[in-house]
Amino acid sequence: MDKLTFQNTYHLIKPYIHRTPVLTSQSLNAICETEIFFKCENFQKTGAFKMRGAVNAILSLTDVQRSKGVVTHSSGNFAQALSLAAKNLNVKAYIVMPSNAPKVKKEAVKNYGGIIIECDPNINARENEALRIQKEKKATFIHPSNHDAVIYGQGTAAIELLEDYGDLDYIFTPVGGGGLLAGTILAANYFSNGCKVIAGEPEEADDAYRSLISGNIEINKTSNTLADGLRTHLGDRNFPIIKEYVEEIIRVDEKEIIKAMQLIWERMKIIIEPSSAVAVAAVLKDKKRIKNKKIGIIISGGNIDVSNLPF
Amino acid sequence: MDKLTFQNTYHLIKPYIHRTPVLTSQSLNAICETEIFFKCENFQKTGAFKMRGAVNAILSLTDVQRSKGVVTHSSGNFAQALSLAAKNLNVKAYIVMPSNAPKVKKEAVKNYGGIIIECDPNINARENEALRIQKEKKATFIHPSNHDAVIYGQGTAAIELLEDYGDLDYIFTPVGGGGLLAGTILAANYFSNGCKVIAGEPEEADDAYRSLISGNIEINKTSNTLADGLRTHLGDRNFPIIKEYVEEIIRVDEKEIIKAMQLIWERMKIIIEPSSAVAVAAVLKDKKRIKNKKIGIIISGGNIDVSNLPF
Repeated sequence: MDKLTFQNTYHLIKPYIHRTPVLTSQSLNAICETEIFFKCENFQKTGAFKMRGAVNAILSLTDVQRSKGVVTHSSGNFAQALSLAAKNLNVKAYIVMPSNAPKVKKEAVKNYGGIIIECDPNINARENEALRIQKEKKATFIHPSNHDAVIYGQGTAAIELLEDYGDLDYIFTPVGGGGLLAGTILAANYFSNGCKVIAGEPEEADDAYRSLISGNIEINKTSNTLADGLRTHLGDRNFPIIKEYVEEIIRVDEKEIIKAMQLIWERMKIIIEPSSAVAVAAVLKDKKRIKNKKIGIIISGGNIDVSNLPF
Repeated sequence: MDKLTFQNTYHLIKPYIHRTPVLTSQSLNAICETEIFFKCENFQKTGAFKMRGAVNAILSLTDVQRSKGVVTHSSGNFAQALSLAAKNLNVKAYIVMPSNAPKVKKEAVKNYGGIIIECDPNINARENEALRIQKEKKATFIHPSNHDAVIYGQGTAAIELLEDYGDLDYIFTPVGGGGLLAGTILAANYFSNGCKVIAGEPEEADDAYRSLISGNIEINKTSNTLADGLRTHLGDRNFPIIKEYVEEIIRVDEKEIIKAMQLIWERMKIIIEPSSAVAVAAVLKDKKRIKNKKIGIIISGGNIDVSNLPF
């Protein structure tokens, strides 16, 4: 992965994404005794950074591949992102979703133009069904996080943040499947002057934390966390990057996640989802290191059922 | 009230307020078949536009007046705004609040540096207590909405909006005490090319709507609305402006307010309070008139207890 490809990625996806605003908050700065710059991907199309990687994955296909469509399995933000990215690029998107996925998520995928294929709610059924679509439709499988073009795409949020604020000391992201974290690390390596990347991870789904210790990709035995975007594990494309360059992975518990989410809602008047609050909670947990520094946080998304809140 | 004073007001208060962002939403535009520009005063200091008028009211005092402090009665956004504005200008702020005001509101006023004086929870006690402070401390009374400097100050949100988007056809605001509406009308008259101003008002507190019909300031017999910032009535400083220039006052019911609020939360990922949702609900109710126009909406604030939502 090289700097030039990364720069090209950004220029190619630009017309299909929002350049999201970077917000600041005097009260958050006061609480943390530091300067924080919030890169608001909750204002991105489909309400999450996933749009960046989805667009780039489709743009990286050949014309023949595009004519056959793309397929993924996801019930979360990537399903919506791939659906809209595909629609905007005149490509078919087959989305494999478990039959018990919430109706509201199915509706969102449909509204963005995705073609839903339901499967039994387990990982084998999901993968088999995606494989069937690949064979039957000759569609290209796009993994939500373990895919080079996706990783580059997700890293463009940090490119924009560093264009606006080039002297950040740290960027914090959440870590789930590892696409955003790996992309952010690459962006910091290529486009900053020594900015380090730290990830927040739920204690209840701390596979990435344990993977760093063991040196192998670990999986979650439980994933009993509100941060529903972070229940997945790392992959062979993003783990080597994370393993080599991440400064630290900070684990946060569910109470810390809820507290961080409520703090941002109340002080900044923006809606962030629990997965984003994980990165904020990591910042709050690490006040000593960040004191009087310049911190970026990738606010990954804002998709949450506002009629069912944890506070 | 003249254009030059208005321009001076804006330049004087600038260092003490945020120039709030103007957001747009493709999905809201699609729903309304129009172009909408949201002036986000929920991102203003203290979470509401009231900061503008509060700063201007204090700046318009003489040095002797400033040395004696200011007093108001409010349990809402103006109490917080006057407290912070006074603190930032090294002036004492006495805030008369009913003894049964929510603890969280008292805490906010205290945190912003206001001096709370509790009174019995009725309008007479409130006014008597404010009068007592005026006499005892020689403090200057600042009315939250019926005060020239406050009206000018509140109008600066529309000045900024029109600086960014000079060709708006309509600006929508909520109407409660009338300060924001009157200020916005003056801004549109002086700084736009024929932009008209429309207000939204809760059916449950439709004093302004009835005042327009009768030609006199009417008061609310009930004020059973979620939009707690709009339960007050107009005054002799702002009513003449509203009466002469407002294009229309559109009443919306509680269901429409809740629906509009949820729509903005879900689609735009920003937190707006019920009073702001009243202006959005008015836009949604008036789709025919606004079709293919350019619309501004003053999102007046984002102060709401997120642990106690109506959806």
